[in-house]
Amino acid sequence: MQKAAKTNPTQPKRLSTIEKWDIETDVAIVGYGGAGACAAIEAADADAKVTLFELASDGGGSTALSSGEVYYGGHGGTPIQKACGFEDSTENMFKYLMASIGPTADEAKVRNYCENSLAHYQWMVDKGAVYKHSFHDRRAIIPMTDDGLLYSGNEKTWPYSEQATPCPRGHALEIEGDNGGPLLWKIISEQVQKRGVDIRYDARVLTLIADDNNAVHGLVVRIDQQELNVKARGGVVLSAGGFCMNQPMLEKYAPKLARGNYPVGNPGDTGTGILMGMGVGANAINMNEGFISMPFYPPAETTSGIFVNAQGQRFVSEDSYHSRVAHYVLQQPQGRVYLIQHADDDYTPPPLLNADIAGTGETIEELEEELKLPIGMLKHTVKYYNQHAANGEDPLFHKAAEWLKPIEPPFVGLDCSADRGVILPYFTLGGLETQPSGEVLNLNGDIIPGLYAAGRTAAGVPRTGEGYNSGTSVGDATFSGRLAGKAAATRKT
Amino acid sequence: MQKAAKTNPTQPKRLSTIEKWDIETDVAIVGYGGAGACAAIEAADADAKVTLFELASDGGGSTALSSGEVYYGGHGGTPIQKACGFEDSTENMFKYLMASIGPTADEAKVRNYCENSLAHYQWMVDKGAVYKHSFHDRRAIIPMTDDGLLYSGNEKTWPYSEQATPCPRGHALEIEGDNGGPLLWKIISEQVQKRGVDIRYDARVLTLIADDNNAVHGLVVRIDQQELNVKARGGVVLSAGGFCMNQPMLEKYAPKLARGNYPVGNPGDTGTGILMGMGVGANAINMNEGFISMPFYPPAETTSGIFVNAQGQRFVSEDSYHSRVAHYVLQQPQGRVYLIQHADDDYTPPPLLNADIAGTGETIEELEEELKLPIGMLKHTVKYYNQHAANGEDPLFHKAAEWLKPIEPPFVGLDCSADRGVILPYFTLGGLETQPSGEVLNLNGDIIPGLYAAGRTAAGVPRTGEGYNSGTSVGDATFSGRLAGKAAATRKT
Repeated sequence: MQKAAKTNPTQPKRLSTIEKWDIETDVAIVGYGGAGACAAIEAADADAKVTLFELASDGGGSTALSSGEVYYGGHGGTPIQKACGFEDSTENMFKYLMASIGPTADEAKVRNYCENSLAHYQWMVDKGAVYKHSFHDRRAIIPMTDDGLLYSGNEKTWPYSEQATPCPRGHALEIEGDNGGPLLWKIISEQVQKRGVDIRYDARVLTLIADDNNAVHGLVVRIDQQELNVKARGGVVLSAGGFCMNQPMLEKYAPKLARGNYPVGNPGDTGTGILMGMGVGANAINMNEGFISMPFYPPAETTSGIFVNAQGQRFVSEDSYHSRVAHYVLQQPQGRVYLIQHADDDYTPPPLLNADIAGTGETIEELEEELKLPIGMLKHTVKYYNQHAANGEDPLFHKAAEWLKPIEPPFVGLDCSADRGVILPYFTLGGLETQPSGEVLNLNGDIIPGLYAAGRTAAGVPRTGEGYNSGTSVGDATFSGRLAGKAAATRKT
Repeated sequence: MQKAAKTNPTQPKRLSTIEKWDIETDVAIVGYGGAGACAAIEAADADAKVTLFELASDGGGSTALSSGEVYYGGHGGTPIQKACGFEDSTENMFKYLMASIGPTADEAKVRNYCENSLAHYQWMVDKGAVYKHSFHDRRAIIPMTDDGLLYSGNEKTWPYSEQATPCPRGHALEIEGDNGGPLLWKIISEQVQKRGVDIRYDARVLTLIADDNNAVHGLVVRIDQQELNVKARGGVVLSAGGFCMNQPMLEKYAPKLARGNYPVGNPGDTGTGILMGMGVGANAINMNEGFISMPFYPPAETTSGIFVNAQGQRFVSEDSYHSRVAHYVLQQPQGRVYLIQHADDDYTPPPLLNADIAGTGETIEELEEELKLPIGMLKHTVKYYNQHAANGEDPLFHKAAEWLKPIEPPFVGLDCSADRGVILPYFTLGGLETQPSGEVLNLNGDIIPGLYAAGRTAAGVPRTGEGYNSGTSVGDATFSGRLAGKAAATRKT
């Protein structure tokens, strides 16, 4: 164990020091979550010998813990989109994703994702995914019904609604409750097993094996207290998740994301895959960015409330996706944010939000005073909002008409300030720079032979919380995993 | 030349391949700006043989192009602070810097900077810097007088004004006009020359020379079309600036900073020093952050205007340092921002801002219409502001009383939206992770033997535009350069 303790993921073992190979394979995959499983399937289908190494005692990663939603669209629409009456062109999907992701977007990757989205849908269906032909016409983080389609981002939120034709692209498996992730995992892991992939659990990959030019030839794994040298003739696929569970790494690379207080991921999201890549000269990008949210819905009705800052002013359209709202909440100058709603006697705050009631009032003046907001500001804000909402208008943020109605007394103000108890789920969106194929790039932009990355170990399609859409992380993980597995398998020949 | 073209800063030359050393020295310094010069002085004073390599045909770097202001304080106050009636404790300076820099701050580095600030002042004075005992009691980016002291950050801006006792710490050399940088450069470069440091101009450092463990032994430099191997017995100091002149690197690591349109730096700020460090396994941090500003003053009177967003709402205290205002401008949801001011017949917009007049009005209603703001919002904003300003109060952002007076008609609205012509100067604040000593750390947090970084090649004291203070970049460059030079010189023995 002494020897193992000294191994460092950022220090590759040099090929010249390897005396024997304990395991030889074509494609070695690090991490058996959504990305790793899909890499294994594609690599096996390309006739490669595949060996999967998983740190935990079972597979699943963050995919199995997720809702299992996948963001599909384009090509006129998936069968589900079409059956629900939505038409979706590839260009429209591309335009929307580029607009919502913003300046951090990887255009080539987004284009590739859109152009292959229908094929990816079909691949999932072929593997056993079943999506019901029904549209979930309610705002939800996770649909608790078995509906197949829902809006899962900012498609209907202005200004995106003007930049691309709104279209729902969140596809949820046919299962009730929050059970999509486990079902998705069941479907893809059965495919892995069917292909006879060699899966090693309780296997901690310690570092990569690289030659003096940093081309990757394999990896070192610790299994049963033994360090084994694994030769990967085609390549190593790093699909070991992000780093939301690694506090020092978060503080170093994403200090602002550290404001989140509820990591979304699995215990293996310690960034080891990213560090191993960096150790052989891979470039890590977008490392400061992440998803950070504030689950102010369900219930969807919360969307009819308004968020105000320490100045008693609105600052975001409340019909935005939850992480877009969180993005603006965290930017507010003094950090104080309140959610103002109408409150009956039986009012209960949004159950997932964990926000305290900071004030109530029969009048806005009363509420304003309880919230210690500058006198007169909240009054103006609510008056202005109500006056226009009565006409189905929101001149400030163009919230969709369905959520616009005057907020009537009595009022309640929930404390949504970060650092005051409200839940802020987060995960990382930075990782290794890759080609759309999954090939990992070094600092000079050259491909590192033998190294591939997928899922949250790579900087993929989703890049920011501000522009996040549910289904793009599992969508990107499964899609990028497939490409990486195929590329590594192809290289062996 | 063929050979040279193949050399890549991120690929070190391996020690084992070196057949002969063309130059041997104790401390090799890459980049002859403020950091490099101060490194050279300290290394020479520690009896090291020093060789300086500068890409350009003369020294100076971004320091010579700057205002030359240095941020000093603490210890009861510098002689200038004291003479001007200001008392400044080290703890007060530390508290202010930590609060203004925020979560990206390197506490150890900030503490070291504060604890040695008076000594750094004294060192500069000993070298020839002259600071007049006079306080420039006007808001300025650069004092055009020969005054010695000014407020150069957000010290008087709420909430910082409550987190630490406001104290001016920007020290400007005794010279009129925008001539502080050239004078500072004259002073320190004469000290370098006096010490007989070997300075090679027109010398492009291509890459580092490192052994198989990435310990640094020297560098490869191209001079007169010859590639020379330089042995550095103590170490190599990377003081080659930031990367604001490298557009692809900006887009990769700081895509949001790419909204700036006026790079502040010298042509050598191409990130080569950072890339060379990364090539031997150094960690690069804070890479997404930078200074980005909007020169809305001079004249200082602009501070009495108000900035409003597309909602017609204020969003920042206008007495903030210019880059703090820019930070909030760039965050505004729709990107539209107007500066509202009183305008006489002889009104001229702030000369450095380059903002168009987007609207005028004898009444706020007229202006609101010309600016196409939501009807009624600007009217409320101005009314609320004026009503409180008349009492010397700003309940929303606590702008200091000296800038508070009602904005009287006629009104003008300047278009300060990014992407509409307004000047947005910027430079990078990310770089190699170092110890306060200048020792460069690898991905594992271990010191890379023989490698030092200073100035904007390192992630130093200043970390964000939001929390920037003038004088901290030149202050950090000169201070960190001194420490790195000393550390490299000491290591040789």
